[in-house]
Amino acid sequence: MADLAIGIDIGGTNIKSGIVSRERGDVVKSISRETASDPESISATIRSCVEELIESGAVPQTDLKHIGIASPGAVNTKSGVIFGSSPNIPGWEGTNLKDIVSEFGLPAYADNDANAAALGEAMFGAGPGCKDILYVTIGTGVGGGIIIDGEVHHGVNYGAAEIGHMIIEPGGRQCGCGNRGCMERYASITGMMITAREMLGGRKSGKLYDSIGGNIDKLQPEMITREFKGGDPIAFEIIKAQAEALAQAVSGALNLLNPAMLIIGGAISESGPEYINFLSKSITDKTFPAVSEILKIVPAKLGGNAGTVGAACLGWVS
Amino acid sequence: MADLAIGIDIGGTNIKSGIVSRERGDVVKSISRETASDPESISATIRSCVEELIESGAVPQTDLKHIGIASPGAVNTKSGVIFGSSPNIPGWEGTNLKDIVSEFGLPAYADNDANAAALGEAMFGAGPGCKDILYVTIGTGVGGGIIIDGEVHHGVNYGAAEIGHMIIEPGGRQCGCGNRGCMERYASITGMMITAREMLGGRKSGKLYDSIGGNIDKLQPEMITREFKGGDPIAFEIIKAQAEALAQAVSGALNLLNPAMLIIGGAISESGPEYINFLSKSITDKTFPAVSEILKIVPAKLGGNAGTVGAACLGWVS
Repeated sequence: MADLAIGIDIGGTNIKSGIVSRERGDVVKSISRETASDPESISATIRSCVEELIESGAVPQTDLKHIGIASPGAVNTKSGVIFGSSPNIPGWEGTNLKDIVSEFGLPAYADNDANAAALGEAMFGAGPGCKDILYVTIGTGVGGGIIIDGEVHHGVNYGAAEIGHMIIEPGGRQCGCGNRGCMERYASITGMMITAREMLGGRKSGKLYDSIGGNIDKLQPEMITREFKGGDPIAFEIIKAQAEALAQAVSGALNLLNPAMLIIGGAISESGPEYINFLSKSITDKTFPAVSEILKIVPAKLGGNAGTVGAACLGWVS
Repeated sequence: MADLAIGIDIGGTNIKSGIVSRERGDVVKSISRETASDPESISATIRSCVEELIESGAVPQTDLKHIGIASPGAVNTKSGVIFGSSPNIPGWEGTNLKDIVSEFGLPAYADNDANAAALGEAMFGAGPGCKDILYVTIGTGVGGGIIIDGEVHHGVNYGAAEIGHMIIEPGGRQCGCGNRGCMERYASITGMMITAREMLGGRKSGKLYDSIGGNIDKLQPEMITREFKGGDPIAFEIIKAQAEALAQAVSGALNLLNPAMLIIGGAISESGPEYINFLSKSITDKTFPAVSEILKIVPAKLGGNAGTVGAACLGWVS
């Protein structure tokens, strides 16, 4: 009898769900829906995804052992309650994730989305066989997940692994958390775009500038990573600023945790080996020798499935 | 029958040793010797301390259950071997700490000095009852120890908790580790004195300046903390720079680990509540709200005994 679970990954844009196999960590059947703007509609969407997956006939219903949910925000993994604000989902705070799916009668598990993705990568992505991992995902913000001895490190208040809010520039760019100079304001896609606009404003030439025809509103993140690979000096400076901001916080985290592996996830990690190699060097240069000499730095492997697979994994380690 | 152990704390200046009671964590009998400059003499001093403690008659010899050794540098706690350089003890690398005391026929334990002090504070100092602690000690450098679920977090290469080498100022002051801008180059006593010399050079007035009669070589760390309490503006600026440097790295560590308690140790932590309160505010201001709202920040309690007590504790958690 197969061991399968339903994983649900609640994103600001889409709710991804799927049936995940414990044997290979692959998504046997998946359903994606747009994320509604109010908590009740999101809960209804989650239930309809679960129902559809169960009814799909893709696998025998008795093989589905549990439901795992990954969500933005801090998640009390015992109670399933979201606390702390989730800027992308107004009113989401206070929601009990486990309650949303209680009607299906399966054991339910819940965690923060970056923690779940870290676990997914650890079990079935870039990290199988490795039990001590720092996972960093670069997107709208910068999220983190810490795996120690095969388990997610949550901290005493489910607030651990907030790597994006490590301060790298005292008095620097204002962050949504209330502080200034948080790493994610420089190293996230959002942060990189702010840097790009600053730099392009001052340098009105080069391939990157030409590609937007002087119209800064046309700039897309992919253009920057493409021209970085192509050798454009401004694109290089933008990526360098992004990589060094990330490296400053990540090297600090590595010096504290001394993990065996660093996994870099999120869209930017898929832009090719040039970027990962450049970033790896920035990180290694800033890390204490005893820590960096045994460290493997690798790109994430599960891509957009990391959250769904990771959510399913929550029930396989609990 | 009492449960007692011998703890040995190898410092750059002194080797402190003592008989520690498991019941209360107090030092029943202690011996301190100057640290010699070569590894063989240090080993001989350690053996003579152990012999003297055993022969002292302070406790029945059969009550002594083990010997614990705390040393600068990265320590492989399984083998007992020091690796990585220890700037204060040339040639110390490669020494097997457990072998030094093998002739006494007692089980031997070894760890890095900051890790041992963290454990000592956790079990018998500021932290009893608390199982998730970040310990930071401010001395010549800045050391750290991480306690997760009651145990020292060593990392996969015994290199964890290197909080002093988190980079806070890219391209900043040169550090002995090879990098630039490490936190300890600003927040250690050494770092604070560099800042003080820079600031006093530019500001030739005020109580602090007067107290050294314009002779910068007369400046002592205690003068700075004393005049800080007294309200001298330059002393305030010096302490502010030290505290903010420490706070930047420590807040990052707190955001990653989300511990229940932060313990501040080292000589500077004994300079009174004014400093601890000022530092606490700097740290809290820079820390993610979900992490800071449950955090207790407290000064260390064991003072100069933290290493000796912590070394003895190594055998009580193994």
